[in-house]
Amino acid sequence: MHISELDTPVAVVDLDRVHANIERLQVYLDRHGIHNRPHIKTHKIPEIAHMQLAAGAVGITCQKLDEAEAMAGAGIQEIFLPYNILGERKLERLMLLSRRANLSVTADSEVVVRGLSAAASREGATLPVLVEFDSGTHRCGVVSPQQAADLARLIARAPGLRFGGLMTYPCTELTDPFVRETRALLRADGLALEVVSGGGTPKMWEAHTHAEVTEHRAGTYVYGDRFMLAAGAVQPEHCALSVITTVVSRPTRDRAILDGGSKTFSSDTLGLEGFGLILEYPRARLSTLSEEHGTVDLSDSPEQPEIGERVTVIPNHCCVVSNLFNQVIGVRNGAVEVTWPVAARGGVR
Amino acid sequence: MHISELDTPVAVVDLDRVHANIERLQVYLDRHGIHNRPHIKTHKIPEIAHMQLAAGAVGITCQKLDEAEAMAGAGIQEIFLPYNILGERKLERLMLLSRRANLSVTADSEVVVRGLSAAASREGATLPVLVEFDSGTHRCGVVSPQQAADLARLIARAPGLRFGGLMTYPCTELTDPFVRETRALLRADGLALEVVSGGGTPKMWEAHTHAEVTEHRAGTYVYGDRFMLAAGAVQPEHCALSVITTVVSRPTRDRAILDGGSKTFSSDTLGLEGFGLILEYPRARLSTLSEEHGTVDLSDSPEQPEIGERVTVIPNHCCVVSNLFNQVIGVRNGAVEVTWPVAARGGVR
Repeated sequence: MHISELDTPVAVVDLDRVHANIERLQVYLDRHGIHNRPHIKTHKIPEIAHMQLAAGAVGITCQKLDEAEAMAGAGIQEIFLPYNILGERKLERLMLLSRRANLSVTADSEVVVRGLSAAASREGATLPVLVEFDSGTHRCGVVSPQQAADLARLIARAPGLRFGGLMTYPCTELTDPFVRETRALLRADGLALEVVSGGGTPKMWEAHTHAEVTEHRAGTYVYGDRFMLAAGAVQPEHCALSVITTVVSRPTRDRAILDGGSKTFSSDTLGLEGFGLILEYPRARLSTLSEEHGTVDLSDSPEQPEIGERVTVIPNHCCVVSNLFNQVIGVRNGAVEVTWPVAARGGVR
Repeated sequence: MHISELDTPVAVVDLDRVHANIERLQVYLDRHGIHNRPHIKTHKIPEIAHMQLAAGAVGITCQKLDEAEAMAGAGIQEIFLPYNILGERKLERLMLLSRRANLSVTADSEVVVRGLSAAASREGATLPVLVEFDSGTHRCGVVSPQQAADLARLIARAPGLRFGGLMTYPCTELTDPFVRETRALLRADGLALEVVSGGGTPKMWEAHTHAEVTEHRAGTYVYGDRFMLAAGAVQPEHCALSVITTVVSRPTRDRAILDGGSKTFSSDTLGLEGFGLILEYPRARLSTLSEEHGTVDLSDSPEQPEIGERVTVIPNHCCVVSNLFNQVIGVRNGAVEVTWPVAARGGVR
């Protein structure tokens, strides 16, 4: 089947580009001696995770327990879950999963450590726990090396746990100083700091400039998107995920309506103007989304699409787009090669 | 099972409130002699559609062919699809569906009419087609009564089609004048204008002020959300859909992190500040989302949640939230009563 026969809107993945994206980052990280632990939240597809491992990744990263369950169910053994797991039911699921895969997790508070310790010691397991620290993003993470060292000591002493290192997202100029200061504090206790896990696609090609970082977690690199183009992390020929849409209306000379809206592209702007790049009409602006309509402003576009024409959109943010589809279509040279269920989306998280 | 036992983040629907919301709009529309044709894009759940029909709706509205297929598959007979259906594969699906349900659709261009006519006449069907017009929203729809009348005549003459009336979204002060002018133009041809379909939840209680409108399509009313609260269309005690989340981190005094982000709430702001209302901490601001984290600014909140605490979020926009979950949990008085698959989401649209 040719991609022109697919009903729209449809999320299409160029298999050659996915393969090349996986190889390119792996080669770069290998060259610099940095472990690659790609984040599967972007694709949520076991077969792509297996491609990443085959290329040389040391394991994968999952953001949610259900993602990890889906990946373990597909035979993946090395899974890092850089998220605070809390609550009896989630801890029970985590421990069940630990029987089937080599898990590591993170914590940024004593409450999380105590919950993990209770669950892991009941299970008779030894769970590696990394301390999450804040490199300036102000999301999760301890905010001082002293806090990091205190939490590391707590983990090292906690039944069922093992101190697994430090984790941050994304890497910034604050990362290395934070790590060095924490290491100095831990030395007094004889606590070794072996793993420092950093991450992010926008600045992935600078991973080697963070001397303390031993592994890198990137997700978006596998597909690329309009934000990563704007960030200079990928080039147009690397963009592997696109959404094919149909022009369903041309109410005025300056306006076209696509059959995809916020339930197709999401409302993520990531600071960009508009909601995607229309490859065939680069001067058209996908300016407004309702749930199932995308409004295109053609006032600056000398070329204009006709009703019924199919146009290809590179979305702002590929991770949330693949999350909106039950399946993506893998293509090569315009021919459909595989339908991949987005296995790890939408479930009990 | 009590809702406190559900893993978070989880989308929960209060069944008594859903029932009351359905009844309230039905009573209002009945009182004013306006047909009710609720839009199922909000819930995408056949059982709720059946509740809406049982309350007195004349049929349902679906925005996408896959929604209509899911609803017809659940035994629903009267389905309006106010969307331009284009392309051989979609038209074929539409005609297959027309064997199982009484369908009506819309068109706003000759291209769409010709496609529908070819497909319907091949099928030997008579498909009602309404002309979509623009009441000032500048999405789809013809922009002048003359265009509306011309398209109505084309539909009336087209093999396999029947002129089904006019459709717009949402109703505005431009709606009635547009309809009257179009009716006058059609009178010369002896074309009756029987159905005028309007829609929208924000101003649903003004439906009766549009004298020309014969039926109303509202979707969001069934759940309610933060935007509808701001619009004054619903009150807090009507909000039926909420997302229960867990506080997974308290990195600083002024910051809490929830285990739901843009893959849970979507990035829809609809012009509001922040991404949801936290019921237990109304002065806390859900200020930033990443994919699986929600950052809460507690600087104005005298009360502060603890790590592990569960908090209830009324999202900005319920329609895109239910679309992000494979299932929602129906509860009554805090007890789980049903798990509803969000049947009509994410498929081949």
